[in-house]
Amino acid sequence: MKISETGIIERFFRDLGAKRPDVLLGIGDDAALLAVPGGEELVLTTDSLVEGVHFLPGMNPESLGTRSLAVNLSDIAAMGAQPAWALLSLVLPQADESWLEGFACGFGASARAHGLALVGGNLSRGPLAITVQLAGLVPRGQALTRAGAHPGDVLFVSGTPGDAALGLEVLRGTRPAEAQHAAYLRARFERPTPRVDLGVQLRGIASACIDVSDGLYVDASRLARASGCGLQLETEALPHSRALREILGEDGWRGILGGGDDYELCFAVPPGRIAALTQAANNGVRCTRIGELTDAGGIEIRRAGAVMQFSAATFDHFSS
Amino acid sequence: MKISETGIIERFFRDLGAKRPDVLLGIGDDAALLAVPGGEELVLTTDSLVEGVHFLPGMNPESLGTRSLAVNLSDIAAMGAQPAWALLSLVLPQADESWLEGFACGFGASARAHGLALVGGNLSRGPLAITVQLAGLVPRGQALTRAGAHPGDVLFVSGTPGDAALGLEVLRGTRPAEAQHAAYLRARFERPTPRVDLGVQLRGIASACIDVSDGLYVDASRLARASGCGLQLETEALPHSRALREILGEDGWRGILGGGDDYELCFAVPPGRIAALTQAANNGVRCTRIGELTDAGGIEIRRAGAVMQFSAATFDHFSS
Repeated sequence: MKISETGIIERFFRDLGAKRPDVLLGIGDDAALLAVPGGEELVLTTDSLVEGVHFLPGMNPESLGTRSLAVNLSDIAAMGAQPAWALLSLVLPQADESWLEGFACGFGASARAHGLALVGGNLSRGPLAITVQLAGLVPRGQALTRAGAHPGDVLFVSGTPGDAALGLEVLRGTRPAEAQHAAYLRARFERPTPRVDLGVQLRGIASACIDVSDGLYVDASRLARASGCGLQLETEALPHSRALREILGEDGWRGILGGGDDYELCFAVPPGRIAALTQAANNGVRCTRIGELTDAGGIEIRRAGAVMQFSAATFDHFSS
Repeated sequence: MKISETGIIERFFRDLGAKRPDVLLGIGDDAALLAVPGGEELVLTTDSLVEGVHFLPGMNPESLGTRSLAVNLSDIAAMGAQPAWALLSLVLPQADESWLEGFACGFGASARAHGLALVGGNLSRGPLAITVQLAGLVPRGQALTRAGAHPGDVLFVSGTPGDAALGLEVLRGTRPAEAQHAAYLRARFERPTPRVDLGVQLRGIASACIDVSDGLYVDASRLARASGCGLQLETEALPHSRALREILGEDGWRGILGGGDDYELCFAVPPGRIAALTQAANNGVRCTRIGELTDAGGIEIRRAGAVMQFSAATFDHFSS
């Protein structure tokens, strides 16, 4: 006998994620019911992964579980919010139990690690697509937006962007790499680490923040534009992972700026708050100073004093 | 030149839905940011419409806009909550502007009618699928769930269930009907009316509530089971629309109980609160007494004193 819709929910999803006392009703009624503490603002976001568009057919389901949550957690992190509740909409071609087990394992581990409860969702049959919606909370007035930076603020990025894009090339077989680099880079694509704790720490420190999903150049430019500023980036300052440096060599900076799928945070800090950042952001996440907001419009990339040309091909689902 | 992802968002979705003062940040940052009033509980729900599964290829986009919101509004209504904020995830095979215009028109009109703001979402290319997530608010402790009914409570349903399922048969060409009935029934399928105001009125009156999406028999049974009760339904009491009565004749009751896609509310009321219901629910939505919760397990259907056999084929995406 095939497993039913209700069977799938009961077996794989009912108790997935963290247990939270503010979940008054989770999966099972018409909607989830959640207690909202006073003095907070609610943060809502959603993102989809569609087979053949956002991931290759046959991709490891555990990694899909992790990634479908990570792309959303990263948006919550970029707002300086604490994730709380998730909804999951799955469109599946068939009820493949080993796929479901892998997916639930990846999704559940990441949800529990972030104190996130899965409180509802829905299942349909159709071409494989995963849509996650997250709700988070941030104390009133403390959310980080893209628009608060000023000329003179220093631009930082967490982690080592560029790795995930190289990892995808390794997975696709279009980029040769030594075994140890290949494993590292693949993991950076398959299991990104959304910077939720860092986002929370940046409240009161960063003047603006964005998550790096479409590439550092594109997302840093969005932050600058939303803040009404220009931007100067220094290629020598960019944080290179060892694998990226060895594989890309002199062109490393192009890989770091172009990247994509990094799920790091890019943020601006007023000069007077940099000491606070150094004290706060020292629990394992490296944050690197990569440039400065300017009052001239436009984005300038400097390398050894010279202005470099760089064009980032942004991915657009419809105009290409 | 083809329209871009950003172009689609700016042109069709940026100002869609109601303007609400509690929307601190809507579309455009990493996530939406919303002020949550004290003393309320948050209600979250999501539902998807997938082409070829939930609707026929080529279906009118305005109706899809209306229906994708209605299926979610109906869940919010069944909790007695007031809808507030929506996220929209669209997977589209191409950027067809006339389709987008129709969809945005149906979605926007319904959102504005319910004071609902569209605060975020995402667009991807792929097989047509629409996922909507809604967030609503209900005063602390006043939400309606499926589980609160007691033996002796009276069961009611709003509107005239069964019409939408007949409307789908008319649309598919499998059910002949006179022109006037055909138009009425198609509208009942294409533009369901979620009972949001009724849900709010039922706070403090209904002991349990569920929305009727999988057919009245199936959903009423779910309410009874969740409340630990049995149920007795009277076929003579069921509300027949004129179109359904003329088309189905003696078998009308089977159409009403089997139905599907009704998006009406089915709710239990303690005998002492029926007078309050009569006073409250008189702004246009007909609510009909159709049976009673019992302390015996099981669901019994009575017709002219005799117990009738009825089997509802519930739709399951995976076990069929």
